[in-house]
Amino acid sequence: MIDFRTSPEHYHHWKIRYDGDIAYVDMDVDENAGLFEGYQLKLNSYDLGVDIELNDIVQRMRFEHPEVKTVVMSSANDKIFCAGANIRMLGGATHTHKVNFCKFTNETRNALEEASALSGQTWMCAVNGTAAGGGYEVALATDYILMVDDGTTTVSLPEVPLLAVLPGTGGLTRVTDKRKVRRDRSDIFCSSEDGVRGQRAVDWRLVDEIAPTSQFKEAVARRAKLLAEKSDRPSDAHGVRFTPLERTISENQVEYSLVTIDLDRKNRTATLTLKGPAEPAPTTVEATQQQGDQFWLLALARELDDAILHLRLNEAEIGLWLLKTRGIAEHIPGYEALLSQDNWLMREIRLFWKRTLKRLDVTSRTLFTLVDPGSCYSGLLTELLFASDRSYMLDGQWEGDDTPAPTITLSEMNFGPLPMSNDLTRLQTRFLGEADSVDSAHELIGQPLDTAAADAAGLITESFDDIDWEEELRMMIEERTSFSPDALVGLEANLRFAGPETMETRIFGRLTAWQNWIFQRPNAVGKDGALQLYGTGTRAQYNLERV
Amino acid sequence: MIDFRTSPEHYHHWKIRYDGDIAYVDMDVDENAGLFEGYQLKLNSYDLGVDIELNDIVQRMRFEHPEVKTVVMSSANDKIFCAGANIRMLGGATHTHKVNFCKFTNETRNALEEASALSGQTWMCAVNGTAAGGGYEVALATDYILMVDDGTTTVSLPEVPLLAVLPGTGGLTRVTDKRKVRRDRSDIFCSSEDGVRGQRAVDWRLVDEIAPTSQFKEAVARRAKLLAEKSDRPSDAHGVRFTPLERTISENQVEYSLVTIDLDRKNRTATLTLKGPAEPAPTTVEATQQQGDQFWLLALARELDDAILHLRLNEAEIGLWLLKTRGIAEHIPGYEALLSQDNWLMREIRLFWKRTLKRLDVTSRTLFTLVDPGSCYSGLLTELLFASDRSYMLDGQWEGDDTPAPTITLSEMNFGPLPMSNDLTRLQTRFLGEADSVDSAHELIGQPLDTAAADAAGLITESFDDIDWEEELRMMIEERTSFSPDALVGLEANLRFAGPETMETRIFGRLTAWQNWIFQRPNAVGKDGALQLYGTGTRAQYNLERV
Repeated sequence: MIDFRTSPEHYHHWKIRYDGDIAYVDMDVDENAGLFEGYQLKLNSYDLGVDIELNDIVQRMRFEHPEVKTVVMSSANDKIFCAGANIRMLGGATHTHKVNFCKFTNETRNALEEASALSGQTWMCAVNGTAAGGGYEVALATDYILMVDDGTTTVSLPEVPLLAVLPGTGGLTRVTDKRKVRRDRSDIFCSSEDGVRGQRAVDWRLVDEIAPTSQFKEAVARRAKLLAEKSDRPSDAHGVRFTPLERTISENQVEYSLVTIDLDRKNRTATLTLKGPAEPAPTTVEATQQQGDQFWLLALARELDDAILHLRLNEAEIGLWLLKTRGIAEHIPGYEALLSQDNWLMREIRLFWKRTLKRLDVTSRTLFTLVDPGSCYSGLLTELLFASDRSYMLDGQWEGDDTPAPTITLSEMNFGPLPMSNDLTRLQTRFLGEADSVDSAHELIGQPLDTAAADAAGLITESFDDIDWEEELRMMIEERTSFSPDALVGLEANLRFAGPETMETRIFGRLTAWQNWIFQRPNAVGKDGALQLYGTGTRAQYNLERV
Repeated sequence: MIDFRTSPEHYHHWKIRYDGDIAYVDMDVDENAGLFEGYQLKLNSYDLGVDIELNDIVQRMRFEHPEVKTVVMSSANDKIFCAGANIRMLGGATHTHKVNFCKFTNETRNALEEASALSGQTWMCAVNGTAAGGGYEVALATDYILMVDDGTTTVSLPEVPLLAVLPGTGGLTRVTDKRKVRRDRSDIFCSSEDGVRGQRAVDWRLVDEIAPTSQFKEAVARRAKLLAEKSDRPSDAHGVRFTPLERTISENQVEYSLVTIDLDRKNRTATLTLKGPAEPAPTTVEATQQQGDQFWLLALARELDDAILHLRLNEAEIGLWLLKTRGIAEHIPGYEALLSQDNWLMREIRLFWKRTLKRLDVTSRTLFTLVDPGSCYSGLLTELLFASDRSYMLDGQWEGDDTPAPTITLSEMNFGPLPMSNDLTRLQTRFLGEADSVDSAHELIGQPLDTAAADAAGLITESFDDIDWEEELRMMIEERTSFSPDALVGLEANLRFAGPETMETRIFGRLTAWQNWIFQRPNAVGKDGALQLYGTGTRAQYNLERV
């Protein structure tokens, strides 16, 4: 079982040093601490375990270190910055693992890019030795790349010539769309084993700056300082410590404090139940800060995030997730009011929810949200409906149960602060063909909508009464899980992202889909394919047909 | 060998009737006239042969019938409009054929959509019987869908539940991005075998209008007339007849009048040489019209288009194309001046070039353009450089040869009339990171640029002198063709489309890439996969892992 929970005292692969408003994050991969057997993480190459730690670093840096304004990523090894994803790991991994490994690493790259863009915590990269493949891709996700000009250090994306796969962790997309490298130069760069060094790397916009070895450290410090000056993060605030995330796992259940996952293995379905706040919201940001990581919205985001990752990687055959909530909807607006305060921590919590909901968007499982008596869909939690492929609402109460009929309440959270990766809100995406419906929905903010009203506003897919509910759901779940899981992957990846594309949607769309195709092709993964034969001295044998 | 050339007297599958400014195109598939053995084209299902005819119809309709303002597509069979791509054909086809079949059908759908948008020739669809899968996808490509409301006729995309593949001929993308169907309804629609009929199809925006059987014909005629009224096509112009396209094929050469393909099978390379105009341009549109399909720009487009399709489908192992030109560059501006005239035929020729260059953009082969003495890169032909992955220019003359050193000349054709499918010009895409370079290039219009000037303007990838030329190219070609063809497919599909996405790029990017991935997966194509078992009564056995 893969566990995404970690903390600094357990890191194997990274060293962190704090110097006022600058943090130095050095990659120092322990080659004998791979997540699985069968490979050594030589030359600062990485596997999922290395990336789980990086994800933890990005998260904690944002929450635990409000004072950090620039994060400098570098290598503890002066010869090599990072050699990218470990090839033997990739060669030995199942298709499912490869795809999920890439998705998670992409999400982590996006999270550090988001820190630069929206958190006032800018990541820069001090490329102090060769950055190859995934090594350069992580650099590309930072906002500034400073490379040592020592005559040998290069940046490169040698995946195509060496491994017959793509630079799929955003590499191709960031070269064309972030660095905006000219197409023919991109073509040369991405089909060269050797990479580019020195001034040419600057001229081609592959790096932002170079500095000779003797001046490198100073140049890095200078740039880090300049970037820090642009930040709006407070210098004197206290961070929120992330305490260990507790959970209990039994055969068919995973239980956190606010999230419960119930697995129905026979029907290949998981029910994720999210708990609303037990108490009304604190009234001030200061009081919120004192609750630390136990503040309802933060604790829930952490648990939901972990639950998503756990199910993705460890429960591949659970193809359908039912999302439910339980709690008192009336408590929620108070919590949301805090999130809109002008405060670094409130911003971080909001951005954490944004990332977590985006993680849900790209999760390759069917998502149905259920709205039944006892649920608490208000504002932020209502986003679950719009992040789902379908939503079902009970019309009325359960027979013989006096729990009130369910309602849905919209808030400003549904109209801007939590955009999808296409930069639209989920409601804008939903109503792409009827913009008026977004405006009409906006007028409903704050009103608890019963089933008829929610249906009229186009907010739910369908409703059933208590007589039909169970049978209708049973049939739909049976039908859905009888389909080819692969066809559903493709269906959902297309339908969920209507409208404009962004660099991020292109990474998860165009780039990822082609990479996954290549990950199925014998030229890459067959026994004579390049991923298998790399390093053996035997050349790969390719089927020569162009598809 | 697959031949893309056809003409109305050879059609097996379509019936066309002209009624003033309206043309009626009825699908009437001859089930025994499949392109290959092993399947019958029952229920108006199609294979590549059916689509080759449709492509010919779209082309000729635009050129031979200036008077046609609305094209009504329907079925000659009242029970079934079209059942989509033939499943047994798909089940028996190689991966390469499947992928190229889908690409070509997508291009044809785009061409008829472009006719509606830019040619004043609007395609509408009279769905007079069930339209399933690819049958509904072709309807989606038209501008108006009118469906009979007879209690049984439906539109559907049953690929996911029935076949474990996607509606990959634009279906998913046009549902979300053209028809803008709400996401959860799209999800239900695309996972239902049954489809949607009657008023619900209108309410869900799947069709534009319904009419009962008794009023259907009249409703179609009324709508066709309304659409025709919006057209700016002339009623009294003479069309340009497409005479048979002559070509001679020998083992290593394909020769047209203006295009020659030389195949180097050992090096898996094709050289495509395009001839410039033999004479100066006619001086008036009338004189141009008299040249008919022999007008240089039209004849060249037809031949290049056929050459691209021939190589794509029939020469899969030829992985690299070298593009060359031969002729007198000074003749070209006169031809281009005609294209900018306000005349339906000039517009059609320009749009034909736009489509042909876009066909090149999505061609899954490495493209290098060579600029050497004797070449004629002026305006429109200069687009070949920007459509290529790389371009190489000789610096100076050949030793002992007095042919002048090559030049490149830009024209307005490079700055607007021939956009890529991302809606940017190729120069805008090339200079995404340096918009100033587009402006600087614009100032160079009309000046023959030598190698140094072309290089300084960023218009070429690299130059070599006559001593190095051959050896440098040889090494580059050898290196390129040594790479995995699959990795190159993915590389080029990503690097060529920097910048914004459109519905069209999404179809060739996100949708196609996922479909190709699924076309590799045992759940679809394995011996127990759905494509193989469809119609046998045996249910497909799926690997249940979600990737």
